Amino acid sequence: MASQLDPDRLFPADTRTREIARSLYATIADLPIISPHGHTDPHWFAENEAFPDPAQLFITPDHYVFRMLCSQGIALESLGVPRIDGGWTETDGRKIWKLFASNYHLFRATPSRMWLDHSFETVFGWTKRLSAETADEAYDHIADCLTRPEFRPRALFERFKIEAIATTESALDDLKWHRMIRESGWSGKVITAYRPDSVVDPEFDGFAENVEKFGELAGEDATTWTGYLAAHRNRRAYFKEFGATSSDHGHPTARTENLSQAEAEALFQKALKGTCTAEEADAFRGHMLTEMARMSLDDDLVLQIHPGSFRNHSGPVMKTFGRDKGFDIPSRTDYVRALRPLLDAVGMEKNLSVIVFTLDETTFSRELAPLAGVYPALKLGPAWWFFDSPEGMRRFRETTTETAGFYNTVGFNDDTRAFCSIPARHDVARRVDCAYLAHLVVTGRLAEDEAFEVAHDLGYRLAKQAYRL
Amino acid sequence: MASQLDPDRLFPADTRTREIARSLYATIADLPIISPHGHTDPHWFAENEAFPDPAQLFITPDHYVFRMLCSQGIALESLGVPRIDGGWTETDGRKIWKLFASNYHLFRATPSRMWLDHSFETVFGWTKRLSAETADEAYDHIADCLTRPEFRPRALFERFKIEAIATTESALDDLKWHRMIRESGWSGKVITAYRPDSVVDPEFDGFAENVEKFGELAGEDATTWTGYLAAHRNRRAYFKEFGATSSDHGHPTARTENLSQAEAEALFQKALKGTCTAEEADAFRGHMLTEMARMSLDDDLVLQIHPGSFRNHSGPVMKTFGRDKGFDIPSRTDYVRALRPLLDAVGMEKNLSVIVFTLDETTFSRELAPLAGVYPALKLGPAWWFFDSPEGMRRFRETTTETAGFYNTVGFNDDTRAFCSIPARHDVARRVDCAYLAHLVVTGRLAEDEAFEVAHDLGYRLAKQAYRL
Amino acid sequence: MASQLDPDRLFPADTRTREIARSLYATIADLPIISPHGHTDPHWFAENEAFPDPAQLFITPDHYVFRMLCSQGIALESLGVPRIDGGWTETDGRKIWKLFASNYHLFRATPSRMWLDHSFETVFGWTKRLSAETADEAYDHIADCLTRPEFRPRALFERFKIEAIATTESALDDLKWHRMIRESGWSGKVITAYRPDSVVDPEFDGFAENVEKFGELAGEDATTWTGYLAAHRNRRAYFKEFGATSSDHGHPTARTENLSQAEAEALFQKALKGTCTAEEADAFRGHMLTEMARMSLDDDLVLQIHPGSFRNHSGPVMKTFGRDKGFDIPSRTDYVRALRPLLDAVGMEKNLSVIVFTLDETTFSRELAPLAGVYPALKLGPAWWFFDSPEGMRRFRETTTETAGFYNTVGFNDDTRAFCSIPARHDVARRVDCAYLAHLVVTGRLAEDEAFEVAHDLGYRLAKQAYRL
Repeated sequence: MASQLDPDRLFPADTRTREIARSLYATIADLPIISPHGHTDPHWFAENEAFPDPAQLFITPDHYVFRMLCSQGIALESLGVPRIDGGWTETDGRKIWKLFASNYHLFRATPSRMWLDHSFETVFGWTKRLSAETADEAYDHIADCLTRPEFRPRALFERFKIEAIATTESALDDLKWHRMIRESGWSGKVITAYRPDSVVDPEFDGFAENVEKFGELAGEDATTWTGYLAAHRNRRAYFKEFGATSSDHGHPTARTENLSQAEAEALFQKALKGTCTAEEADAFRGHMLTEMARMSLDDDLVLQIHPGSFRNHSGPVMKTFGRDKGFDIPSRTDYVRALRPLLDAVGMEKNLSVIVFTLDETTFSRELAPLAGVYPALKLGPAWWFFDSPEGMRRFRETTTETAGFYNTVGFNDDTRAFCSIPARHDVARRVDCAYLAHLVVTGRLAEDEAFEVAHDLGYRLAKQAYRL
Repeated sequence: MASQLDPDRLFPADTRTREIARSLYATIADLPIISPHGHTDPHWFAENEAFPDPAQLFITPDHYVFRMLCSQGIALESLGVPRIDGGWTETDGRKIWKLFASNYHLFRATPSRMWLDHSFETVFGWTKRLSAETADEAYDHIADCLTRPEFRPRALFERFKIEAIATTESALDDLKWHRMIRESGWSGKVITAYRPDSVVDPEFDGFAENVEKFGELAGEDATTWTGYLAAHRNRRAYFKEFGATSSDHGHPTARTENLSQAEAEALFQKALKGTCTAEEADAFRGHMLTEMARMSLDDDLVLQIHPGSFRNHSGPVMKTFGRDKGFDIPSRTDYVRALRPLLDAVGMEKNLSVIVFTLDETTFSRELAPLAGVYPALKLGPAWWFFDSPEGMRRFRETTTETAGFYNTVGFNDDTRAFCSIPARHDVARRVDCAYLAHLVVTGRLAEDEAFEVAHDLGYRLAKQAYRL
Repeated sequence: MASQLDPDRLFPADTRTREIARSLYATIADLPIISPHGHTDPHWFAENEAFPDPAQLFITPDHYVFRMLCSQGIALESLGVPRIDGGWTETDGRKIWKLFASNYHLFRATPSRMWLDHSFETVFGWTKRLSAETADEAYDHIADCLTRPEFRPRALFERFKIEAIATTESALDDLKWHRMIRESGWSGKVITAYRPDSVVDPEFDGFAENVEKFGELAGEDATTWTGYLAAHRNRRAYFKEFGATSSDHGHPTARTENLSQAEAEALFQKALKGTCTAEEADAFRGHMLTEMARMSLDDDLVLQIHPGSFRNHSGPVMKTFGRDKGFDIPSRTDYVRALRPLLDAVGMEKNLSVIVFTLDETTFSRELAPLAGVYPALKLGPAWWFFDSPEGMRRFRETTTETAGFYNTVGFNDDTRAFCSIPARHDVARRVDCAYLAHLVVTGRLAEDEAFEVAHDLGYRLAKQAYRL
């Protein structure tokens, strides 16, 4: 049977190094998947309905896929991306699929290509190369699979050997799908994570209304500073009931603040009135990270900071199609001064876990590894978003390990809403780490027996430990 | 016969990977050269006179060469660089050559060394290592060649298999050499490119006079905003008559603006009066990029942005020797916010081609690949200037491919005025790309048959397509 | 006998490349050590007393070691780091050692692990792997060694084949230990270096008192600008009597200034009164670099600039334990504009040697290599501090060589106070350089005979030449 997957993919070229990588990988390839941070839809696992057609599974929801097609002049409408004005967009899955398949060469040497080929083959058993010629055959093959029970979300969850997966919900979410999962009696461990951006960011659409709704959900008067903090505590506890072990914060920068309670309260009241300046809104967001960290000291939620994305870069695309259309662009991010207020407040707490991510690779060796290599509370999240790729992961290890070691990192996060890509992504991470470890062994920087232990740590144990799963 | 050139140079060390690289390279090594951006002198091809002595061919005009000698304390005067005050400089080519040859070890492992050895050997058939001992012999050998017809510019052009080469001329240039080439009946394709820095940069020496002359050349009253824009349209059309397919813009930063016509006009009038602040001059330059892009929508010229060089860094050197003496230093450049006004205006136009270069490698993975990987109008220029080197090119591929793929890049530009180095530079680019592709094949990230297609694309087709040649 | 050291460590994996690396290394492995910049304690060589216990030798004084342990929640007190308030800290060396040994896995793949294993084995002949199980045995073994004469500082100095080592002393130091070494008749070459931070930085603790003391030491009225400059000249001459060939400057940024004497004097008077703004203090520090460079033109001291560390990042740690507790974090540093005033003043002086270091690797290819590749006075210091590591050193060569060549770099500095790690660090640097050179040879970028010469230059000759030793 043909295959698009080289069994030795991502292993070093050199024979001896490759053999060691292969040996390491063999011991971790089939470990269960810990997915402590991601964006799968709990609705899937709650209702367990069949996924719709191949285009809706692989193309329309995947930014990586449609942004690349867009970059070559293919209109988002023709890929089925809905317009805000309700204007025409393609709805024929097969047409969308054929457009995608005809441009499959654009993905050469990208991680998307590797994930897609891996999904086609290992999830659906379709092993030919996708192209204009094979588009229909692939479409029919996958569409047929999707009608069968073993391709429903829960069956795939089990087939993927997911030991635990975290979704991400707004602080305003009622978690009804999580409740439905829990009440269904299904044994799959699908947990939530607390994402309060809509109620901690004064610049978020409808901030004041959000805070009001937030108070109602929590049974607190969230329009007072004390009530607002109490509402967070209450909601965090509620999220914990549905398995949450972490909160997640997607701010434009890594800025933190540790204001006096009076200052914070004053900013909060301005925020509710919508009179914060941009600077004040930024300071408030920064302060709330420190408040969240203090709450974490009490309730043990891991604090995740995901800064540095310039969201919705294209005005025209935002206007026509709305948010999250592949136009979020990384930008330069500073951590040394930005994280200092939070670290001065709680950085030496050894029972706190603050996990920082970056989209600015230059900060790994210069800022983040030196910080995580000394502050007990700080850990490094894995290579993220555009860097969730073989080269990105390799650079992550090469620029962090010498200063922060392995044990200030937290294993792999897939961070995805593309369900079928999850095994592929974890497989890439495990292979890249084994390749890196094998290289260390061959160059005398790590003993072979230690490499086996580290491989298991990076591929499984550290994620479980860091996220308290 | 001895040789300084390893036939496997720049290929990976690993045997299997090297074999694949060799196979890929074999299919593209002899392809014609597309040189869509550079600084060769059209005068050479117009008059087709013999090049003067070896020193004037290889040393005096090549910044890379004399800056390295200067860095070790060798006076620019002794290398024949003319002083503004007319003071003494060495004029004896042989003396200059011997000084250079005696310090040839300084170039070890630099791209200059590779280009020079390649030129000596493949262009002039001189295969020994240059040194104090061999300096005279090399000088005599090359000087002798230069007297022969087969070493005249047009003969070399044909020997180099140049399919098309673009020079770069100021918007104020009358293009007389290009006219002479065209009228000579010679078949070599030497085209111009439109470089309007002197009439779009309010801080350029003699801006107001330049604009006046510009209007005269164009037959427009360029001192009015409308006439000024019309003059650009006119000159662009004139440049197109001499083959231009692109404009080129060398601004200090990547800043763009999309001002209202009233604002732009007001700045333009201040610029003519010489009363722009530094900030206003910068805004005007930024706005003109967007105007140029809009003109490109009409006349199809490719827009090239080359930002980020701090020009003429040394005050004393500028004072004694003038501009362009190897003291242009790259500096940190931001693209995400800087390019936004232009991209909001024209970024979604699929028939527009905006090619961006950088001297700040950190922006490749963080900013430029994510931008080029989504905006239809934007493409990535190749590794440029100091990064036009084996390591620079490798890093370019490693930091852009995963996010932008191959098809948002535009092949190779040699960007040089060192004519004899052109085959060497394209050869380096082709070898480095084949090495990169071979590595992808061996690590299971690209199928071997696809690698052959990509090699041809990177070595030839993409440059031709992106520059509409 | 077991060993933790792979004889081929840090050499490339590929067989042929490894063989070349091995051949190169064989010719330089045993060369004497030139250590032109570091922080060993001259007291050791003056008194030549036995080092105390293993914990005090390897753990308590080594930031790299205790910061990593701290990052995993181990209290600094339990590692014997003294508290400012005199509160409890562990004093039992064996307990500290066991805590360290039990956490030795944290150092996997870090340079500390490599240095420690190298010291245990080559200095002390202890070849097992350190762990909780072997902690006592290792402690006893090393403690026993330390009682013997051949492990005293001078004996180790000779065993390490140190040809010359520079310590670093404050401009206020009386150099009594250096005097004692000189008067002892011992032949070891231990020299000082002039570090005037405490008297050139208006923000340094006790600046005005320091300047007063400085004047007394120099026999000048250092409270006048003229007297202050004379005092520097005087102290520099004094340091030269004890072998100094360099000065060293650890500023927060790379800023330089070249103010008029009147401006400088005015800032100096404000500094003495303690009324400088942060901006003025920064300008004064920057100006003093240019003054130091001018003095270097007269007295030939090499000027070293070590910018970019955010010192004592944690407020609580600074308050409890004081300075230098592993909380110095690199931060983004700009050189192009920052160094310009100094370079305009003295950059073209070919007899001046200004050596610049960086903690911001992004500046190597973008700023520092282009600057050092043209200014005669400027040289690049080696990979520094957190980057004094295999990957850091590799990236240093890959990002500087193509633009600055080898001969604008200055060999290796160990920059350490961990005496036993000195041979290990130089060995790492020599191995990494040989690996890099071998890779250049195999990829046809450097002839093999030239590689041997370069290996010797990088491993020995350049440090000697650049530091005038």
